[in-house]
Formats: sequence, structure tokens, C-alpha cells
Amino acid sequence: MRFHTRKWIKPEDLNANNSLFGGRLLAWIDEEAALYAIIQLENKHVVTKYMSSINFMSSARVNDIIEIGIKPTKFGKTSLTLSCEVRNKMTRETIITIDEIIMVNLGEDGLPKPHGKHQIEYVKDRLK
Amino acid sequence: MRFHTRKWIKPEDLNANNSLFGGRLLAWIDEEAALYAIIQLENKHVVTKYMSSINFMSSARVNDIIEIGIKPTKFGKTSLTLSCEVRNKMTRETIITIDEIIMVNLGEDGLPKPHGKHQIEYVKDRLK
Amino acid sequence: MRFHTRKWIKPEDLNANNSLFGGRLLAWIDEEAALYAIIQLENKHVVTKYMSSINFMSSARVNDIIEIGIKPTKFGKTSLTLSCEVRNKMTRETIITIDEIIMVNLGEDGLPKPHGKHQIEYVKDRLK
Amino acid sequence: MRFHTRKWIKPEDLNANNSLFGGRLLAWIDEEAALYAIIQLENKHVVTKYMSSINFMSSARVNDIIEIGIKPTKFGKTSLTLSCEVRNKMTRETIITIDEIIMVNLGEDGLPKPHGKHQIEYVKDRLK
Amino acid sequence: MRFHTRKWIKPEDLNANNSLFGGRLLAWIDEEAALYAIIQLENKHVVTKYMSSINFMSSARVNDIIEIGIKPTKFGKTSLTLSCEVRNKMTRETIITIDEIIMVNLGEDGLPKPHGKHQIEYVKDRLK
Amino acid sequence: MRFHTRKWIKPEDLNANNSLFGGRLLAWIDEEAALYAIIQLENKHVVTKYMSSINFMSSARVNDIIEIGIKPTKFGKTSLTLSCEVRNKMTRETIITIDEIIMVNLGEDGLPKPHGKHQIEYVKDRLK
Repeated sequence: MRFHTRKWIKPEDLNANNSLFGGRLLAWIDEEAALYAIIQLENKHVVTKYMSSINFMSSARVNDIIEIGIKPTKFGKTSLTLSCEVRNKMTRETIITIDEIIMVNLGEDGLPKPHGKHQIEYVKDRLK
Repeated sequence: MRFHTRKWIKPEDLNANNSLFGGRLLAWIDEEAALYAIIQLENKHVVTKYMSSINFMSSARVNDIIEIGIKPTKFGKTSLTLSCEVRNKMTRETIITIDEIIMVNLGEDGLPKPHGKHQIEYVKDRLK
Repeated sequence: MRFHTRKWIKPEDLNANNSLFGGRLLAWIDEEAALYAIIQLENKHVVTKYMSSINFMSSARVNDIIEIGIKPTKFGKTSLTLSCEVRNKMTRETIITIDEIIMVNLGEDGLPKPHGKHQIEYVKDRLK
Repeated sequence: MRFHTRKWIKPEDLNANNSLFGGRLLAWIDEEAALYAIIQLENKHVVTKYMSSINFMSSARVNDIIEIGIKPTKFGKTSLTLSCEVRNKMTRETIITIDEIIMVNLGEDGLPKPHGKHQIEYVKDRLK
Repeated sequence: MRFHTRKWIKPEDLNANNSLFGGRLLAWIDEEAALYAIIQLENKHVVTKYMSSINFMSSARVNDIIEIGIKPTKFGKTSLTLSCEVRNKMTRETIITIDEIIMVNLGEDGLPKPHGKHQIEYVKDRLK
Repeated sequence: MRFHTRKWIKPEDLNANNSLFGGRLLAWIDEEAALYAIIQLENKHVVTKYMSSINFMSSARVNDIIEIGIKPTKFGKTSLTLSCEVRNKMTRETIITIDEIIMVNLGEDGLPKPHGKHQIEYVKDRLK
């Protein structure tokens, strides 16, 4: 799994227990999954269709730095399935894992559309 | 199920497909679940522990109004399990359902603590 | 009066006195009044025209939960007059009341347009 | 009346009618009134107590620039009364006026406290 | 130099050292420079092209009030060069200075376009 | 240079010319530089002291994905100098480069403090 985007926990990201608000974390994960799918599928019209169950394993505190990892697990005909792990950047403790996030590739008409991709591609190879 | 909080979809809530960004919706649901648990358990130290799988059934567009419904399904010893439905306020079309959201009641020490509640209570009865 | 939308006071909602920032509260009320008018008038082009004087009776602190109540008081030809109360969800203490909020129904041309409504309607009745 | 703070209307400041959302404007005004009172009273513990009725005279569109003017009208014992006008920076058209905004000076205990001020003071004179 | 826009430092504007986050300050300065250029050039299509080096001289703390000053230093054919100082409103201590911010005037096609201005103009004179 | 954090350009990140608002980009860069320094120096009390001049080379449009690269160029006694490049993720076109961003390591007293680091360290090596 590759970990790219990093977030710095700010006071506005906390819940009443002074730990990272779960909803904020889910919003960050959904954005990262969409970003990943847009890059892989080379299409900006991508939406989240499904997330498997979510277990909040540990939390994070203000000023902690976390990193979000995404790995593709299945290239479907019109979909891309991802798995996700979020961990503390400094201690590598896992904060949350989501086994399946299914992203769907849409056409201009807003309906699912085959994306024609079968494996991870790197931008640097595409630009050769 | 009782539907309370309403949200008005604004341009900043949209994804690149011009429909409601899933991550924003999950953040709203998590906040509503926490609010509900705080009111029921009469304790502000409540955190989200688990969410069952999430199926995005339909979406919403800019200027739509949605409403978020929460129903308690199980009062555990230190936990409260909720189910959630989000629907379009005007058409009542379902946008998302989550069968189980498990909230945990914490003590001052940040550890799970029995909440002593067994059923829904209404604020108006408590104030009598 | 029916109380729907609930807000959880976060650190970013506070003023320098560590109580709820009045401007934030007014923004929430205006949004709730607009939401209410859109639902009743079945028209998204609704704007706030007037608010009667505002008395800040008590305040709220971080992690308090408040609820916003709206009641229609007059169905005009092109307008809808609402009254509003905001109270603490747990103690029912009143935070603010506004006697008159006048919302105006607009046509596609941006000018006031008769809305043809004379009383409260419930979405569930409309959908029958 | 002196006009200081300027705001640039962004897409996130609009209502469903694509004009400036009234609640956003009220939040800006309340912040500006608080700023003004803090500077005049040399005390950060200042809260809004009352606003007289508000008439939305014209609106603003995306990318318009508006400016917010504040004038003190009465120095009370523990309060400062301000009047406010918001206008379009380029056309000088009035958007909103509020005749009375009453700010109250608080002590460390959160109760009203005499501020000892009787007239406008300029920072440059204080620093002499 | 004229100081107009004032900002009140809120908890969400702080870095992990509890002083004003530099990035937030740069965003405020860029917005103020754009506002100033739009007013002077009477054109909303203005972009930032260059900023000279930035020296953070002192910082600000929560609840401080700062003010942002802008002065035009050169009217080019398609550009406007500004200098900027940000200072604490109450103590006049300088927080940051930027000697050159170059704004470029664009046409409808997004390309640089002569603006025809040679000196500062005041809105009140234009409206005569 | 390593590129980690990715950003998806949203409508609220745009200026009046519908391209990426420069101030938003500077805020993202400053946050990324602070994150990088915190990780390298293993200290959360790090502040931005200086940025060399900034040339906006190209811009970005809504729904573009950009990535932010940071490289350490000098480990001083109490400081860390970084260089930064932001580029379009899909086309690798450069958007902005900043040659020098000087971050200063602070002690608990808020004064510069030696950090004792001389070269890049990887978290995975520290955790061995």
C-alpha cells in the first residue's frame, strides 16, 4: 500500500472527547479514494458506490500527523475497488482500515461506463 | 425513525460529478449520530466505534434539501447502537442507509463506561 | 413550534469570550428559515427580506447542543413570515428569539412572485 | 461612518437564488461589530447583546466587493451602541443597514463591567 | 499605506505552536491584494503573478486583531505592483512585509490585457 | 523531490478568474512544509520564518489534481531549509516553485532551539 496524502490534526477536527472526529476522517478517506480513482481511471466523473464496514481502531490527537494509504484490489468493468488504511505517521499505529471502497466510473450521461483499465498505471509511464 | 436535522446542499458539498460528495454526507451522519447519543446517554464523551457497510443508493444535487433520520436499535452496557437513513426531504427518496452505527460511552479517563440507559428518553420527560 | 435542526457547538463557533459567536447563530437561523420557506413554498428561489430585532438572552458553550425552532405566522401573497426560537436542547433554556423573519418568494426573473400557499403543508400529505 | 473591512463575494457565500446569503452577511457584520468594540473598549471580552431590525435592501452577486461600515452612536456605562451599513464598494449602493447593535463589555467573571470610555479613540493617539 | 481589512485571530487560524499559521496569513494577503487590484483596475479578472520574498517578523496570538495594508508602487501596462504590510492593530507591531506583489490584468480570453490606469483612483471620485 | 500530499481543486478554491486562488495554494504549501519539518525534526513546535520569492508559472482549474513536493536543502543548527514544487498530477506541468522555505525549530519557551538533525531520516528506520 502506498501512503501519500498527509493530514495535520487541527482543533477543528476534534470531537467533544478531544480526539479526531470520525466523520472528518471519513470525509478525508472518501476524497482520497476519489482522487486515486480519478488518477487511475483517467476520468473525473467517478463516484463512491459502496464502503464495507468501518472499525475505528485507535484515534488521533491534536497536532498528530496521519497518512492515508490506498491500494487497488479489483479492476471491474465499470468499477474500481480500493482498500484503505489510515495510520499515525510517526508511530505507524493503525487508526482505521476499510477493506472495500467501490468507486464507479461514469460517462457524460451520469451512467456507469466501462473504463478499460486492468492494472495500476503510473503517471510517469503514461507521459513517456 | 425520527428525522430532525436538515441540510441544504451547497456548491461546496459537491464532487466532480456535481452530485453530493459522499464524504461530506458521512461527516454529517457521524455528527448526527454523536449528537443523538450525547442526548440519549446524557454524556458528552461519546465516540464512534463502528459503522456497518454503506450503500450509496441515490445522490442529491445542489439546492436539494435532505434530512437525516436516526433510530436507536440496541442499548448495550457501555454502547448505543443506532441505525440511520438519509432521504431527500421533498421526494422522500432514500439516499443512504446505515444499519449499525455503534457509539461508545466514555468516562473521564477516556475508557468505556456503563451508561445505565435502557430505552429512549425524551428531554421533555426528564425536565418534568 | 417544531424544533428540527440541531447544532453541536464546536471550538470554531466561539467568540473571544468562549461563548457561542452571535454571528454564527444568525447564519444558522437564516439558513433554517430559508430551508423552512423552501419546503413550504415548494420553490428554491426564496430570499430573506427582513428580520425584526434580536435579543441575545443567554449563550451557549462548547459542546452544548442547541435546537432551532421555526413557526410560520403569516402567509402573505408573495411572502411568508416566520418566527424563530433557539434553545439549549438539554435544558430548554431560550438562547434567542426572533419574532418576525420575512421570506420572499421569487420567480425566475428574480422578482417577487405569488406563491399560492395559505397554510402549513406536510410533505407526507403532498406525497399521498 | 468609516468603512474598513472588505469582503469579496465567493460562490460559497451565495444562496439558492445566486445572491449573497443573508446569514453570511449577518455573521460578517457581527464579527466587524465585535472587532470595533474590542478596539474601542480595549477589552477582548465583548459580546453582542441586541440588534435592531434588519432590512435587506439590495443584494450582492458573486465576485462583487462589499465594504462594512461601523459608527459608534452611544457610549453607555457597560455597553457600546453601534450602527452599521454595508454597501457595494464599486457602486456605493446600500445592501443593509442596522441602526443599533449593542455590545456589552464583560469582566473576567463574564458579567457586565464598566468600560470607562466616553468617545471614539484612535490607536495612533493611544500609542503617542 | 492605507490599512483597511481587519482580521480577528481565531483558534482555527493557529499552528501547532499556538501562533498565527503563516499559510493563513498569506491567503489573507493574497485576497486583499486581489481585492485592491480589482478596485483600482475596475476589472474582476486579475491574478497574482509574483510575490517577492517574505519575512515573518513577529506573529500573532488568538484573539489578536491584525490589519492588512496595501500600497500600489507601480502601474505597468498590464500589471499593478503592490507592497503590503500586516501589523497588529493595537500595538502597531509589524508582523510581515512583502515588498512586491505583482497582479496581472486579464482579458476575457485569460491573456494579459492593458488596463489603461496610471495612478490611484478613489471610488468617490469615479462616482462624481 | 518526493511528492506526497495531493489536492483536488474545488469550486471554493477558485478566484474570480476561475483558476486556482494563489492564496489557497500558499496556505497548502505552508502546511505541507510545516508537516515535513515536524516529521524530520521530531518536534511539533516548528514555525515558518522565511519564504523566497514566488513565481506563479501556470495555474490549475476546477477538478484538477495537484501534488505538492518538498525537498530539504539545508539542515541548520535551529532551522531546516526546504524547497518546494507544486505540479499538476496528470500532466506534470509545474504550477509554482519556491526555492527556499526556512522553518525554525522552537523549544517549549517559544525560542529557537537546536534540533540535532543533519540529514533526512525515514520513519521506517526510526521504528526499527
